[in-house]
Amino acid sequence: MLSVDEALKLILARAQPLAARTMALADVDGLILAEDVASPIDSPPYDKSIVDGYAVVAADLATGEARLRILEEVVAGEVPRATVTAGTATRIMTGAPIPAGADAVVMVERTSHHAHTDAHHLGTVFIRDADVRAGRNILRRGTSLCAGDVVLRCGAPLRAIEVGILAEVGRAVVAAVPRPRVAILATGNELVEPDQTPAAGQIRNSNGPLLAAAVRAGGGDPLLLGIARDSEEDLRARIASGLQADVLILSGGVSAGVLDLVPSILKELKVAEVFHKLRLKPGKPMWFGVAQREAHQTLVFGLPGNPVSSYVCGELFVRPALERLAGRPGHGLRRLRATLARDVQQRGDRHTFLPAVCHLSDQDQARAEPVTWHGSADLRGLTAANALLSLPPGDRVFHAGEIVDLVLLDQA
Amino acid sequence: MLSVDEALKLILARAQPLAARTMALADVDGLILAEDVASPIDSPPYDKSIVDGYAVVAADLATGEARLRILEEVVAGEVPRATVTAGTATRIMTGAPIPAGADAVVMVERTSHHAHTDAHHLGTVFIRDADVRAGRNILRRGTSLCAGDVVLRCGAPLRAIEVGILAEVGRAVVAAVPRPRVAILATGNELVEPDQTPAAGQIRNSNGPLLAAAVRAGGGDPLLLGIARDSEEDLRARIASGLQADVLILSGGVSAGVLDLVPSILKELKVAEVFHKLRLKPGKPMWFGVAQREAHQTLVFGLPGNPVSSYVCGELFVRPALERLAGRPGHGLRRLRATLARDVQQRGDRHTFLPAVCHLSDQDQARAEPVTWHGSADLRGLTAANALLSLPPGDRVFHAGEIVDLVLLDQA
Repeated sequence: MLSVDEALKLILARAQPLAARTMALADVDGLILAEDVASPIDSPPYDKSIVDGYAVVAADLATGEARLRILEEVVAGEVPRATVTAGTATRIMTGAPIPAGADAVVMVERTSHHAHTDAHHLGTVFIRDADVRAGRNILRRGTSLCAGDVVLRCGAPLRAIEVGILAEVGRAVVAAVPRPRVAILATGNELVEPDQTPAAGQIRNSNGPLLAAAVRAGGGDPLLLGIARDSEEDLRARIASGLQADVLILSGGVSAGVLDLVPSILKELKVAEVFHKLRLKPGKPMWFGVAQREAHQTLVFGLPGNPVSSYVCGELFVRPALERLAGRPGHGLRRLRATLARDVQQRGDRHTFLPAVCHLSDQDQARAEPVTWHGSADLRGLTAANALLSLPPGDRVFHAGEIVDLVLLDQA
Repeated sequence: MLSVDEALKLILARAQPLAARTMALADVDGLILAEDVASPIDSPPYDKSIVDGYAVVAADLATGEARLRILEEVVAGEVPRATVTAGTATRIMTGAPIPAGADAVVMVERTSHHAHTDAHHLGTVFIRDADVRAGRNILRRGTSLCAGDVVLRCGAPLRAIEVGILAEVGRAVVAAVPRPRVAILATGNELVEPDQTPAAGQIRNSNGPLLAAAVRAGGGDPLLLGIARDSEEDLRARIASGLQADVLILSGGVSAGVLDLVPSILKELKVAEVFHKLRLKPGKPMWFGVAQREAHQTLVFGLPGNPVSSYVCGELFVRPALERLAGRPGHGLRRLRATLARDVQQRGDRHTFLPAVCHLSDQDQARAEPVTWHGSADLRGLTAANALLSLPPGDRVFHAGEIVDLVLLDQA
């Protein structure tokens, strides 16, 4: 049987970034840019004032004082008409273009305005400012970026900042790697949907909603395909429908029972098995394969039916695959090293992942300890966990104070 | 003028969790639970087998070997009918209920089945297993949770794990704190939408898309209200519409220019000013107020028009407010302490936030250094940043090697 690390390598090798799509700017945040973006403009596109005040010839203020005739008033969105010459000034607002002839802006707080008796004249301004030099309060054209500059590279993660830049350079649509579409199918005759009351021998389908939420947290777009009964026809039809997606997650049906039909139906539907069963606890029965039909590839994860096993396999294997499909570097697991807070006994030949709470601090080494937990049906035990303690195979005690590996879960 | 910390305190004091709403389970992940949830069921709801195998009376295996008559076959979703007695066994699948009389399950791998010549009989099973004790491979009813147990408390963050538990206990709908609805209005005669080509003196509205993406990253639900022109009617109508939301973000129009009409229109629309102007760089003109109409409250943030100022004020003030509105503890800013990588000169009486890159490592103290940046119109400089270096007011050099405060941004 494969180790966890070998399995993850096999999965990541098959998880290539999805084909880029052209999308509206409002839909790309959180995604990866799939083209180089060059600016068609200088930014700012003109020399602009960074304050409200008066555009002047700096030499007029050589003595620290001047009375200047006001030529016009320019607000942002307007274009100055008059040229500022010695003895004159233009009233200017933040963001407005600097008039020709002016080489500095004096802040309005250092000026006083005197109206003219004739309403056709804008009057004069008296300035007292000993510190007016050429360039003062002017943001030069192209300071932030120049026409032709590549402002964002293919592969850039699109956060709010990058969305703002795309808007600035006029990219209302842009090529990005889409969210992976992830079909989720729970299997089992014992399952009923969460809004149903289970009869004797039945339980509710918690894996479907759980995996949908985990997929969303991992950047995917989940599609719940409901519950497949343990019959060949039902499984075949629903699995075939799930193979339209980029990823198909099955929960249940992959261990070795008489009704665990999933692997044989996957084979029939030409999903090539990459591996089945791992040296992993919980999650030993995990199945992984790939369906390739012309250009479309679907990664198929057969997760165990127990809720905790299903969740753990989702975090260990599906989530890193989703990151790769979404065009992210995909470092694999979100790992962290931490000091173990108490002794933990590990036994057997399977790599064990124990729900743990990790106390993160910005100053000290993180500390981790397992939470109280009753095994792979006990989801409630996981509510206290924000990490999985990763214990390699082999019989030994991991001692309090030892440095151990963790896989980080979403933080509560 | 207020300090940044004073301003944040005033904002958070007014940002109370939104009224809870009953929502479908598929819509609650990422939100905060707004009720205590008790389980109506034991989980598991019956003693169940955790392997595929044979349910037996453990005492039959005292010698390590036995040949037992098979009574029936029970798969998950079925209910056993026969009582297992000495000398008999029931074939059982993972997840199926344990038959009456049985007190252990032997894994199928340790058994061999012998068919009966008469097809009406299920035949016998030969077991060789020296390690069968009462309770082996049985998960007891109620191990994970018992009817009446409160499984999730009001205030719990709903991750995938918690969604799974809600499904398990049958909560297809549940009370949660909704995402804050955030209206975003850019103001300015100089603005055109990103799909337009700016004429002379015009620039594109980058703040709208930028703030929408930042709101989504902060857990809010953004609504773009377009661009308001610097006219009283247009501003009044659009601001009134924005006051339907839980939060209204305005960008631009709050500095001291002749056309900065926003504060007076907000006053007219009965938005009570809490503060205007801060000892903050960038972001000095920031405005904050609250509109209260009967039960509905809107927090109103007037952010500066420069893209970087607008973004920084969003991260410093809007984001912590969104967390509070969403029912999260709202620790305020995501702060971190790091070692400064090179000398940085701070000047003046304003708390300064410089775009910086922070190298996070799980072993060492984080290291931070400012990125190359051309001031508050330079969004591109921010693409390299994943943090803001927080420099308190006062003229001094922060030296390489000093421990400094950071505010974390979304990581690229």
